[in-house]
Amino acid sequence: MPSRTPQPEVLISEVGPRDGLQSVKATMPTADKFKWIDALVAAGIREIEVASFVPARLLPQMADAAEVVKYATTAHPSVTIMALVPNLRGAQAALEAGVHKLTMPVSASHAHSLANVRKTPQEMVQEVQAIAQLRDELAPSVKLEAGISTAFGCTLQGEVPEDDVIKLAVMCVQAGADESGLSDTVGYANPAQVRRLFRRLRQELGEHAGAAHMHNTRGLGLANCLAAWDEGVRTFDSSLGGLGGCPYAPGASGNVVTEDLVFMFEAMGVSTGVDIEKLVAARVPLAAGLPGEALYGMTPDAGLPKGFTQHA
Amino acid sequence: MPSRTPQPEVLISEVGPRDGLQSVKATMPTADKFKWIDALVAAGIREIEVASFVPARLLPQMADAAEVVKYATTAHPSVTIMALVPNLRGAQAALEAGVHKLTMPVSASHAHSLANVRKTPQEMVQEVQAIAQLRDELAPSVKLEAGISTAFGCTLQGEVPEDDVIKLAVMCVQAGADESGLSDTVGYANPAQVRRLFRRLRQELGEHAGAAHMHNTRGLGLANCLAAWDEGVRTFDSSLGGLGGCPYAPGASGNVVTEDLVFMFEAMGVSTGVDIEKLVAARVPLAAGLPGEALYGMTPDAGLPKGFTQHA
Repeated sequence: MPSRTPQPEVLISEVGPRDGLQSVKATMPTADKFKWIDALVAAGIREIEVASFVPARLLPQMADAAEVVKYATTAHPSVTIMALVPNLRGAQAALEAGVHKLTMPVSASHAHSLANVRKTPQEMVQEVQAIAQLRDELAPSVKLEAGISTAFGCTLQGEVPEDDVIKLAVMCVQAGADESGLSDTVGYANPAQVRRLFRRLRQELGEHAGAAHMHNTRGLGLANCLAAWDEGVRTFDSSLGGLGGCPYAPGASGNVVTEDLVFMFEAMGVSTGVDIEKLVAARVPLAAGLPGEALYGMTPDAGLPKGFTQHA
Repeated sequence: MPSRTPQPEVLISEVGPRDGLQSVKATMPTADKFKWIDALVAAGIREIEVASFVPARLLPQMADAAEVVKYATTAHPSVTIMALVPNLRGAQAALEAGVHKLTMPVSASHAHSLANVRKTPQEMVQEVQAIAQLRDELAPSVKLEAGISTAFGCTLQGEVPEDDVIKLAVMCVQAGADESGLSDTVGYANPAQVRRLFRRLRQELGEHAGAAHMHNTRGLGLANCLAAWDEGVRTFDSSLGGLGGCPYAPGASGNVVTEDLVFMFEAMGVSTGVDIEKLVAARVPLAAGLPGEALYGMTPDAGLPKGFTQHA
């Protein structure tokens, strides 16, 4: 057996410090965010969405976005530190703070797009183009991801045509995004639909096809991740303790639970690079920074199976 | 379009009145069991495991097993009314009560088998044979299922060799069981393992391969059902409100939640024959009969997606 650690087969992209926090009422102190991020990195997480660059009056949770990005990129230079940016102004601030990767919410539902970013999907594609140009000027090594929101349905619009989703994802890449992923913002996705859409996305975009961002609103989060894995998806967004939800999408609730997702892959023999016991330990600083907030996840309570050993 | 209702593509086998109740401390009054069973049938459930024929001193919850079977078979003659029987004496009582189908717990883990039924797996195969003979004499139309417990691992024994599981399933069918299914008694299963084992089971047993009985202990219940579906499994055990667990398997907890399982299949376009809204309504008599008991399930809280219509 070779002694070197093989490259993990999937990338777990932790979105809790952004997607998770934006759904809770309390504001986590900045120092607690640092401890939480440190604990995630200690568990082996290699990509973290740490903040959203939006006006502080809209999301007071994110008033310290620049500070969090500066800390995380300095303390953990080998980890990909991401931030969500809804517009050019946010992107400028994120790039100035030194972020490694930008992610933009581009909604396939007109109604959700207007509620979330006050722009139509077409206007958001123009925003992608403007941000890609800014990125090229200021920091060409920074990656730009477009996350296609409400890709599996919308609480406002109802059904979202699959053609709309795929076209929008392609337009974002044509506009300069390095990748387009698909987000089940409101927890409507089912495994058959996940397979259809990711198959089409990967046929259209090849290596520019991005992450699966699933929610667990109706309990199907892991089944949908399995379906995406079957189609070749290798990057999965999830949130420690299952925190998450979109404040501008009624009925949106919890992201896929990172702890259960990592357990699923490791139990299948698919390496994640993440140590489950250290990941469960990262719930301690999360809980400390959000007293009284309910955390989800079955694996932390159940513990690991007898004799369970993680993939190298 | 033909006006007749097509045959549902999967059979949801509700195990709550047996597997669910044996895990709770309170004893549900018999009249409440009747109302709960009625509500399940009203929702379109076509197979229900209603009782366990074990000594009342071991499981006071099941002291009314014969009464429940008599009621259910009389009130709902077109629904398959099942009972669990650990031994010949239990089978005799169940057959006398008029049960339509018997299920036997045959554990692939020696340690769990001894703890659960005080017999080795080999002794249980002899019991299957004896019960099959009794069935042939008393009620040849009654089906006999062997559920291979701890098929994916055991909290007492740890790993359970896959060869042991498949051999035991085959021996049960050779001994006279109509089908052998696989049970993840303690919630250790992962989708890769589910695919491997059900593929082998179906290769070995063909139409005698039985149900997938998954637990949600580590959150993987639906993902494991999806994996079994992919391998051709068409019967799934689950429990309303996710009640369940084995009293003689430490760490065993909740079955797959029927409400979420039905939603997953229906959302995929796979017909179950079960009306989700009526199924959610069946939680009312369940909760009434077990005051204070926590129910699981995400779909009942989240509701159905906007514009969602069930498969015909």
